[in-house]
Amino acid sequence: MSEDHGVSPGLRAALDPERAYELDRRHVFHSWSAQATVDPMVITKADGPYVWDRHGNRLLDFTSQLVFTNLGHQHPAVVGAIQEQAATLCTVAPSHANGARSEAARLIAKHAPDGLDRVFFTNGGADANEHAIRMARLHTGRPKVLSRYRSYHGGTQLALNATGDPRRWPNDTASTGTVHFFGPYRYRSAFSASTEEEECQRALAHLEQVIALEGPSTIAAILLESIPGTAGIMVPPPGYLAGVRELCDRFGILLIADEVMSGFGRAGEWFAIQRDAVVPDLLTFAKGVNSGYVPLGGVLLGEAVYSTFAQRPYPGGLTYSGHPLACAAAVATIETMERDGVVAGAAELGTEVFGPGLAELAAHHEWIGEVRGTGVFWALELVTDRASREPLAPYGGTSPAMTELVAACQRRGLLPFANANRIHLVPPLTITEEQARTGIDILDQALTAACAKLG
Amino acid sequence: MSEDHGVSPGLRAALDPERAYELDRRHVFHSWSAQATVDPMVITKADGPYVWDRHGNRLLDFTSQLVFTNLGHQHPAVVGAIQEQAATLCTVAPSHANGARSEAARLIAKHAPDGLDRVFFTNGGADANEHAIRMARLHTGRPKVLSRYRSYHGGTQLALNATGDPRRWPNDTASTGTVHFFGPYRYRSAFSASTEEEECQRALAHLEQVIALEGPSTIAAILLESIPGTAGIMVPPPGYLAGVRELCDRFGILLIADEVMSGFGRAGEWFAIQRDAVVPDLLTFAKGVNSGYVPLGGVLLGEAVYSTFAQRPYPGGLTYSGHPLACAAAVATIETMERDGVVAGAAELGTEVFGPGLAELAAHHEWIGEVRGTGVFWALELVTDRASREPLAPYGGTSPAMTELVAACQRRGLLPFANANRIHLVPPLTITEEQARTGIDILDQALTAACAKLG
Ligand SMILES: Cc1ncc(COP(=O)(O)O)c(C=O)c1O
Ligand SMILES: Cc1ncc(COP(=O)(O)O)c(C=O)c1O
Repeated sequence: MSEDHGVSPGLRAALDPERAYELDRRHVFHSWSAQATVDPMVITKADGPYVWDRHGNRLLDFTSQLVFTNLGHQHPAVVGAIQEQAATLCTVAPSHANGARSEAARLIAKHAPDGLDRVFFTNGGADANEHAIRMARLHTGRPKVLSRYRSYHGGTQLALNATGDPRRWPNDTASTGTVHFFGPYRYRSAFSASTEEEECQRALAHLEQVIALEGPSTIAAILLESIPGTAGIMVPPPGYLAGVRELCDRFGILLIADEVMSGFGRAGEWFAIQRDAVVPDLLTFAKGVNSGYVPLGGVLLGEAVYSTFAQRPYPGGLTYSGHPLACAAAVATIETMERDGVVAGAAELGTEVFGPGLAELAAHHEWIGEVRGTGVFWALELVTDRASREPLAPYGGTSPAMTELVAACQRRGLLPFANANRIHLVPPLTITEEQARTGIDILDQALTAACAKLG
Repeated sequence: MSEDHGVSPGLRAALDPERAYELDRRHVFHSWSAQATVDPMVITKADGPYVWDRHGNRLLDFTSQLVFTNLGHQHPAVVGAIQEQAATLCTVAPSHANGARSEAARLIAKHAPDGLDRVFFTNGGADANEHAIRMARLHTGRPKVLSRYRSYHGGTQLALNATGDPRRWPNDTASTGTVHFFGPYRYRSAFSASTEEEECQRALAHLEQVIALEGPSTIAAILLESIPGTAGIMVPPPGYLAGVRELCDRFGILLIADEVMSGFGRAGEWFAIQRDAVVPDLLTFAKGVNSGYVPLGGVLLGEAVYSTFAQRPYPGGLTYSGHPLACAAAVATIETMERDGVVAGAAELGTEVFGPGLAELAAHHEWIGEVRGTGVFWALELVTDRASREPLAPYGGTSPAMTELVAACQRRGLLPFANANRIHLVPPLTITEEQARTGIDILDQALTAACAKLG
């Protein structure tokens, strides 16, 4: 292609990683960071589960960047679809229609929980949640949204207010109508439960009390990650999501499933909530929908909420809703997932490799307090002491031990996802069993080394 | 390319416009609409200033879709850059660095008002404003944001609360800390002013009163479209923006310029605020930055706000901040604008074609109450009566006359941008003088026809 129009001189210059680094430090403001302390890795190249830094080191990407490159990097079908769509029609306004958007909506609805047949497209996860909350408020005529502590729903104001992690705190000046409750998390139970069933029952009883005391008639929606992701990959106990659904039905509250991270195969199902055969009223997605190759998110709507806006205008929108280039990448991603059995493969990686591999790791490393996960969605909760469960780094913070562990992984060629006292194992779903084992082995060595130094 | 990996069957099927239409109506939820009334035009093809509908009609696009395809459709340099970047590296997480993002940040800062040297990338305009407001609140420690009536700032909760058009009303249940004031708009003056200078002075005196009565120490920022866009392209009188800057300085308030629509050449300058040589503290952009080919927006920060977040983390972020594919499209767009003198060309189209052409139109059509604009950013304000200035459609609504006018344009091959009682002329900046004249001619005929029928 480049012959036809000439390569952009800027993009050519951008291939120099030293220049990329220098310009980044001069001009780019980074998310969630004190800017003077930012020292980013320049990624110069990426392929499948690998990325390369500017010193030529290859790293096995166990982060999927921010848990979105579900098909790995540079998947040829998705790259090809983007190039093809770019050559045909990059963009149209949301009020018009175009084939790539129509087709993406069809494919997303096809794999969604039953009855979630309509798609409102956004650019990412935060605006998907903003719009889902607005739809719920307008549908019910009620103001409040309940969401759980230990959750993340996005970086815009309302999405952050609904978030239940420390990123919410500095933004809570303008909190309106968001109320937090405790979800099931047996390892650090808020309910002094000692079994999975007890945790489930008590968590539901707690939620019922919160609803009663906040006033059911004031609550528009319960917004819930089907499996909380960044907060720690706490797979809910069997029955919990069904119980929440039942509470919602009883009190006329909508259930919004946030599947931004857990959706599109990550948890070994198309959507994690399908593990429990629960159907939410609204479901938000982003990330895996197109492996993050082009910004895209959205809301899936069931008929009830859709009907509210059949004759009455929905008072919300955005310039790039249903962007054709982003939708073309979604079409190719979903087709690839169907063709290659990616979702079943992810489930199998969970049962065959990650489950047993990480259990074995836990047997050898005192730091590992708990192993949790499903599919290609795993967390190690690290503690200084198994009895007291004292975390290896404080909530919302870090520690020398965690920093050393991450560095030890990177020195050995593994890019890990670290959050507070946890390591998440969230590589592309298309990783081979051998690559998955390699990652676990490196983590094994890194744990040994870091613990020897700082344990 | 397609040979290497096989064309996506879904994207191939999507080329059938009837299927695209049908699937859209079955699965796609549209912005700002009552879904049962949506009857979208399927755009099957686009080239420069033209789009084609599913019946094979070619339309001259005087909307730039939603005022974002500043380089027209399918510009080969931008398409090429997207394809090139897709082949190299589609995506990395925001915490890392990559050349396309670094280079885009450099080029954006290069053309920004002096001192706005840092770029925080978002996916679009709404999240850019959300983050700019958050930065201003955290920088000043103050809660409120002042914005003007007759403005639009985006579709997420906080951005909508700051918006000053009817799209805000159904979402004002959760309004927090947003206060609206009147800006200069001589044709429908809120200040009974009869001259441009009077309008300017009285608008500034009004703003000063609002500041005094809201309490300067409670106001973090004044958020202002440098030229209000969707609200009616009211070019501010000389001295107004400088006066607002002075008020901000006097009271320790930050000035946020929303250049999502007015930026990147639309108003005949890189940024519209440069017409008045005013430097805001924060500037938000989207749309024209990459002609909308890939979703991208952002915030430009001056040193003062940047310094606040040098040692203290900025508590905000998003998964696709600085997305490489979107940034590559920005690099190619800005390079094209530089190389082809697109900004100067836009200014010239304003003075040579749109200014005189629309003045002549006004001389022949009683419906035209006022012509306003600059660059390639023009509005006709339509009235049933020039003396009473009764609008041809109510605020936030439409009318048979407006509907007929739009239909008359479309029948003659022009896609017009209509809002309430206004027609905006906002084609790509790269339109030729001849194409611009053709559009004005069609509008001339359509006005005659519609007025004969419904005037
Ligand atoms: C569960 C969940 N919801 C929402 C979001 C926000 O998505 P985005 O960063 O695309 O706005 C994230 C991002 O990590 C997420 O994990
Ligand atoms: C001035 C202005 N600000 C903000 C926005 C919101 O941008 P987006 O639709 O990309 O969120 C728009 C969109 O039209 C706009 O015109």
